[in-house]
Amino acid sequence: MPFQIHAELHYQVLQRSTVLLNIHALSNDGQKLSNEQLDITPGVQWEEFPLETGENRYIRLDTGDATQLDITYSAMAETKYTMVSHQEIHDVPISQMRRSAIPYLFPSRYCQSDRLGRMAYKEFGGISHPYDQVVAIADWIFNNIDYLSGSSDAETSAFDTLTQRAGVCRDFAHLGIGLCRALSIPARYFTGYACHMQPPDFHACFEACIGNRWFIFDPTRLAALNGLIRIASGRDAADASVATIFGRMQMTGMAVSCVSNDFRPLGAADLAGQAILIEP
Amino acid sequence: MPFQIHAELHYQVLQRSTVLLNIHALSNDGQKLSNEQLDITPGVQWEEFPLETGENRYIRLDTGDATQLDITYSAMAETKYTMVSHQEIHDVPISQMRRSAIPYLFPSRYCQSDRLGRMAYKEFGGISHPYDQVVAIADWIFNNIDYLSGSSDAETSAFDTLTQRAGVCRDFAHLGIGLCRALSIPARYFTGYACHMQPPDFHACFEACIGNRWFIFDPTRLAALNGLIRIASGRDAADASVATIFGRMQMTGMAVSCVSNDFRPLGAADLAGQAILIEP
Amino acid sequence: MPFQIHAELHYQVLQRSTVLLNIHALSNDGQKLSNEQLDITPGVQWEEFPLETGENRYIRLDTGDATQLDITYSAMAETKYTMVSHQEIHDVPISQMRRSAIPYLFPSRYCQSDRLGRMAYKEFGGISHPYDQVVAIADWIFNNIDYLSGSSDAETSAFDTLTQRAGVCRDFAHLGIGLCRALSIPARYFTGYACHMQPPDFHACFEACIGNRWFIFDPTRLAALNGLIRIASGRDAADASVATIFGRMQMTGMAVSCVSNDFRPLGAADLAGQAILIEP
Amino acid sequence: MPFQIHAELHYQVLQRSTVLLNIHALSNDGQKLSNEQLDITPGVQWEEFPLETGENRYIRLDTGDATQLDITYSAMAETKYTMVSHQEIHDVPISQMRRSAIPYLFPSRYCQSDRLGRMAYKEFGGISHPYDQVVAIADWIFNNIDYLSGSSDAETSAFDTLTQRAGVCRDFAHLGIGLCRALSIPARYFTGYACHMQPPDFHACFEACIGNRWFIFDPTRLAALNGLIRIASGRDAADASVATIFGRMQMTGMAVSCVSNDFRPLGAADLAGQAILIEP
Repeated sequence: MPFQIHAELHYQVLQRSTVLLNIHALSNDGQKLSNEQLDITPGVQWEEFPLETGENRYIRLDTGDATQLDITYSAMAETKYTMVSHQEIHDVPISQMRRSAIPYLFPSRYCQSDRLGRMAYKEFGGISHPYDQVVAIADWIFNNIDYLSGSSDAETSAFDTLTQRAGVCRDFAHLGIGLCRALSIPARYFTGYACHMQPPDFHACFEACIGNRWFIFDPTRLAALNGLIRIASGRDAADASVATIFGRMQMTGMAVSCVSNDFRPLGAADLAGQAILIEP
Repeated sequence: MPFQIHAELHYQVLQRSTVLLNIHALSNDGQKLSNEQLDITPGVQWEEFPLETGENRYIRLDTGDATQLDITYSAMAETKYTMVSHQEIHDVPISQMRRSAIPYLFPSRYCQSDRLGRMAYKEFGGISHPYDQVVAIADWIFNNIDYLSGSSDAETSAFDTLTQRAGVCRDFAHLGIGLCRALSIPARYFTGYACHMQPPDFHACFEACIGNRWFIFDPTRLAALNGLIRIASGRDAADASVATIFGRMQMTGMAVSCVSNDFRPLGAADLAGQAILIEP
Repeated sequence: MPFQIHAELHYQVLQRSTVLLNIHALSNDGQKLSNEQLDITPGVQWEEFPLETGENRYIRLDTGDATQLDITYSAMAETKYTMVSHQEIHDVPISQMRRSAIPYLFPSRYCQSDRLGRMAYKEFGGISHPYDQVVAIADWIFNNIDYLSGSSDAETSAFDTLTQRAGVCRDFAHLGIGLCRALSIPARYFTGYACHMQPPDFHACFEACIGNRWFIFDPTRLAALNGLIRIASGRDAADASVATIFGRMQMTGMAVSCVSNDFRPLGAADLAGQAILIEP
Repeated sequence: MPFQIHAELHYQVLQRSTVLLNIHALSNDGQKLSNEQLDITPGVQWEEFPLETGENRYIRLDTGDATQLDITYSAMAETKYTMVSHQEIHDVPISQMRRSAIPYLFPSRYCQSDRLGRMAYKEFGGISHPYDQVVAIADWIFNNIDYLSGSSDAETSAFDTLTQRAGVCRDFAHLGIGLCRALSIPARYFTGYACHMQPPDFHACFEACIGNRWFIFDPTRLAALNGLIRIASGRDAADASVATIFGRMQMTGMAVSCVSNDFRPLGAADLAGQAILIEP
């Protein structure tokens, strides 16, 4: 069941700039790409590279003399997800937690878990299993935060969202991550393409590490969990924003799509008692 | 010129806990260790491992049934620093910046560079060379922020310090990092031992990446730059705190020392026109 | 049923200072004072005056050359409270609200009601009568915020408390006020003596204006509502702090008491279906 | 030299609402009004009243069944201002400060002077006379904060503006007030009409009480100080916003003007060594 993913970004360049892009789907054991293509008009100097953890494929490009920049990316992606019964998810103590998950316990720019501890323990501390805690967190966010375009901005963090009670997918993810970490559950930001999501856009949700495996959660409930194609993971949006611009450029247009002919979204019935893991 | 470093931490364990420690000096080409010794009483299970970037040596220990925990670390460290004339420090654009420095451009928990841009440009934007900008930042912090024990806490961030105008070494470092990043200069947190610092304690300062090399700056002016022994680098204190406790423990005592018989601190005269680089 | 109230404040004066005190009980139709006495040693210049709304009796004193200041206030107070059945409390629209209540709709330093609207509507918007909304707010605070000495400071506001989930009486009151105003219910800060409260201290709670009458609520549940003696009302603690010091003084001791021989605290049974109004 | 002032506000009423308006010029000994006219279409119920300090003339109106609301206010205003030589402005200690100024020493919603003390003392504490301090504050704001429409919103406070370094007249006023109060100088928000200001709009600046008289300062330098017509004073914008809406209404248009045929704005030369006081 391959997904056809496509993104285009159009910019007016007001001053020579360097841009970091996170629009490439990851390529790894669980996610196979084919027909991948990146077109940048006019032709400018660019390179691709991963950072630190390997959970991203940054594009760094230098606009040079370009005054208009048109970036188009497309690929076919095959993904692999695993469903795991709740009963099979163990509660691994921090002393035995996989090392690579440790940094995802620490607070980050948009996920100030150090300030959310008391709230997290009051609301979710009575739940004994970490998996059930994360489910309760995602449900709480869905039920208590309004999804509202324009209600947040690039500076909005989990601390703000918790009180302001409104945000977009990025804010929902940050709050989920912050609450998990406050309960000593490693959590990371997931950004990707989402099949048939309406309106089409890049999507953000989060993964929590339980029993040393990373399960995916979408507190917005806007995307089907089996239709997600990973672009990057990171501590929060600071690590994985779509475009980070050093210089001066103005976006003049953007389009994103992710389609599949034979995609069947997992529904509530499929998910009963099951957690989802996006490989690897 | 070896440094004798020593740290001891004493805890009452109120409930079985897992602890992450950042007290080991790094061991690398520039910093050689000998006679390294870690004693933990009572004997508990622990392991050492680096995270992500290799700029740390985490100790993870499980208190098990211990009710009292005494941790003592000591080593002899030889360090290597390089002095570089200002004239030899080049201004490398982001398009050619070493990849490993890129994450240190992003905002982090305690260094919200995304909110400091306008202030940073107003105060330091008129300075043309990034090295001079960082010098001006460190001077500005020294001149405008009071070093005052107890004026900040574990939640205090650069955004707060900029307005509250008081803090400790950690806050000075965070503000320096935040202002550098706001000017698109990669900056990271440095924590370590500081020779003959009064009162003796773990110290924090910051490094900025200019011309693809990491130079060290101490806006507190409390430590001699050639007497620093690196424990860890990281985005901010969230990555490199001395002890992160999962569980319940109470510190009952702490002692830190760093001495050298033949140490001669670099003074203003030595540093005129020179930047310092701690290897590697 | 007279209450014997007593407060003493002891200061070391580090530099000539002016002090504003809010320790005098109000004197009005509903609250009669006798045997009132203020002793200040050494004798310094002072005056009493109300501000703006008449809901306070500020003492302004100039320490002059004093190096030590001992302030003792005592009085007998008789108070009057009225119990009103829920059924008799009407929902008066803002267009007919008493004018003097209008300023208590606006956000203030510690009660940023403008930032709490969405949370307030989500939690309490489904409740139709404003009286029931305020009862629900006070209950929510009691159930969700920990009363914890030392968990907050003079800068802590309702916005912080809502997320940090801990505070003292002042913080509980601020959060109650903020949530009421967010629902367009005028609310004000109440500070006073509280009969037999343990440990004895000045107390803070809040009043909400419903049906054009000011009812009293104590989300800490630490004080009996019929044992409160009003010192001052105000927008928040900024208007009614016990002591505001301009200069440099250090508190060296404080004692507060409020006792009555024949005081019978109202209990849950007495209060069923009843709201309490402290006159006037 | 009469000013012709005019304001019109147009709203679509989405739900029956109550509105508080601050668009009427004050009428007092120093400011005389004639030909004052308020037209509201359709005719709805409204009343005028002052709050607390008398430094405003609130209009409260009930939209009733109206679905569209057109509000037009106009008047001729004659104002009186006094120029006072710096030498004649005395430094009155708080112990002798006029009582009515005391509340303007306290922090308020948008002017958290309690958090600005250290910065204020560092920047302005070395200046001995309070008048010179306020001049330095207004200059500092003008030089360090960018006037930038859209850079702030209704939640932006002095604490934010100090770091973000951008705002509009309201933010400039809030920061001026916060810094004055942090230095124990009473300061209040001034909102009014401003003759020939470009673009025409309601204006905000601030008054500081020095030597027991309220002098006016405009850190934006957008308005001539002798061309200001006072609408209201207050602790900050929470007390004096143009329109506070309880219900749901959407502004569809607004126009403000303030003109005078023979107005000669005071310039730098006129103001040398002189402070301005708007009566009373």
